[in-house]
Amino acid sequence: MLDATEGEQQHGLPPTPGSPPTKFLKEHASDLQADFCLVTDTNAWDVDTPAITTRLRGLLYLEATVTGPSHDLHSGLFGGAVPNPINVLTGILGQIHDADGRVRFDGFYDGVRELPAELSAQIRGLPLDEAGFLASVGLKHGHGEVGRTLLERIWTRPTCDIDGIWGGYTGEGSKTVIPAKASCKLSCRLVPGQDPQAIEAAVQRFFEERLPPDCTVSFRRFSSFPDIEVPVDTPWMQAVRAGLKDATDRDGVLIGGGGSIPIVGWFREHLGLDMILVGFGLDDDRIHSPNEKFELKCLRNGIRSHAAILGRLAPGQRG
Amino acid sequence: MLDATEGEQQHGLPPTPGSPPTKFLKEHASDLQADFCLVTDTNAWDVDTPAITTRLRGLLYLEATVTGPSHDLHSGLFGGAVPNPINVLTGILGQIHDADGRVRFDGFYDGVRELPAELSAQIRGLPLDEAGFLASVGLKHGHGEVGRTLLERIWTRPTCDIDGIWGGYTGEGSKTVIPAKASCKLSCRLVPGQDPQAIEAAVQRFFEERLPPDCTVSFRRFSSFPDIEVPVDTPWMQAVRAGLKDATDRDGVLIGGGGSIPIVGWFREHLGLDMILVGFGLDDDRIHSPNEKFELKCLRNGIRSHAAILGRLAPGQRG
Repeated sequence: MLDATEGEQQHGLPPTPGSPPTKFLKEHASDLQADFCLVTDTNAWDVDTPAITTRLRGLLYLEATVTGPSHDLHSGLFGGAVPNPINVLTGILGQIHDADGRVRFDGFYDGVRELPAELSAQIRGLPLDEAGFLASVGLKHGHGEVGRTLLERIWTRPTCDIDGIWGGYTGEGSKTVIPAKASCKLSCRLVPGQDPQAIEAAVQRFFEERLPPDCTVSFRRFSSFPDIEVPVDTPWMQAVRAGLKDATDRDGVLIGGGGSIPIVGWFREHLGLDMILVGFGLDDDRIHSPNEKFELKCLRNGIRSHAAILGRLAPGQRG
Repeated sequence: MLDATEGEQQHGLPPTPGSPPTKFLKEHASDLQADFCLVTDTNAWDVDTPAITTRLRGLLYLEATVTGPSHDLHSGLFGGAVPNPINVLTGILGQIHDADGRVRFDGFYDGVRELPAELSAQIRGLPLDEAGFLASVGLKHGHGEVGRTLLERIWTRPTCDIDGIWGGYTGEGSKTVIPAKASCKLSCRLVPGQDPQAIEAAVQRFFEERLPPDCTVSFRRFSSFPDIEVPVDTPWMQAVRAGLKDATDRDGVLIGGGGSIPIVGWFREHLGLDMILVGFGLDDDRIHSPNEKFELKCLRNGIRSHAAILGRLAPGQRG
């Protein structure tokens, strides 16, 4: 079985046609048939309240390397007369966002739909403790695209973040160097209506149009897949909702998710499976950070919920 | 004896009052008295032609760290709603230069004098092979401040280069992370009229004025010293010029230098010494880069020149 919780760490395997996961799925499509697939790589609403994730953002993840001089140079002997790839790279990255926190890649928002009124009202009605959410990561102020609530920004709007950057001398003390190259890792979270391939082309043009003479840029792609929307009106979804209620005595909240789970798209595309996303993580689990945690109460809720969902799925128990 | 060729690798020792070099010089000022000091940490004009460096740019070298969230965050669960320190840092660094290649720190050019007409004419008259100079580092085009020649940019104009940058995930493959902080090393080459302390304050304000809420910036200083101008009308300089002619059968060219040699300023300030700079490096020595070299012909020219200069300094030989 593929590891459905592998999440986003691709380690150099681009999810393009012919890459290992796709090849495996196609070869074993008949062995992997099922009524639906339950994925648990998502969050609960809070420690007591289960949640069903009905949207996931897609992901475009690129590495860009800007190259200038043929080798590292002494910044005294050459500084002021040659292009410094770190200056060039930061000069380009610094232009990605406008003053309203919107992404400036050409056509980035083409096709992005506003949320249906019903879903928008539901998200705005969720009892989010915004100050507490921000305080859990050391912040006091809202950030990001203007005119959007915090949950809208995370669940429904596309983004661009620099996930890593490196170049030149990074050790202790000082070295006066103009490096031959500088690199960054750049990720865009994508929402319904956005085409990962078109946005990748726009990112490349954004860099190329801003390069000074004698500089070049090269790209590597680590992820490229669109968003996911999960239908909520299937019989399997009804069984899952009933099971969650059985186990926790609470209705599962329908939520969005800002992250991306490649396997959800692959299973749906290549196996035709209904995917249902019910996980028990919390916002303050410090996922992808030092001291990551998972609450014991969430573990128990997960165990009980999975048993209850299986019970609701048993012949004679459904409906 | 202090290592006069240590150059610019400060390794965490800021050259501020009370730091080791200054303390040593003050304690041993009487032991270190001399007629003048000959420093060989500079370049020749070319492999056959010696040069006397009469200007060195000063250096301000800072490390800046921008901090945002209290810990690294998953870019899916938080992206779009929190400040990303790499986005913030690159957004600030990307604003340092204007479209004409000039540095935008407040007051950066205050006090910078245009070259005296005579010196400017001499520099413009030097037979520089600009295409060859650029080709030696893999470039074809001129870069930097508009309206200045290549030698003017390197010898007579102030600069700002990012010498290093790092933050977030920098390993192989991908990780979708918003890091808690991002850092860079930033150096400014300084020319006559610029005050390193005033420019350090301007750099700090430049960052602070552009920080979004919840972000902070901290600085470390590794170098801060002004430019150097060497008088060319001293009796010692006459002896040096005569010795160079004896050894190489060519007149030494009076040149500028884009680099910085802290010991030159310290010896002059604390010991009151005349400093004369005659070195035999070449532009294509790949200084501070892999495969650095020093030509055997330059080594022989250096040996012969030092002997000849000593000869010209011997009693009865001067004048």
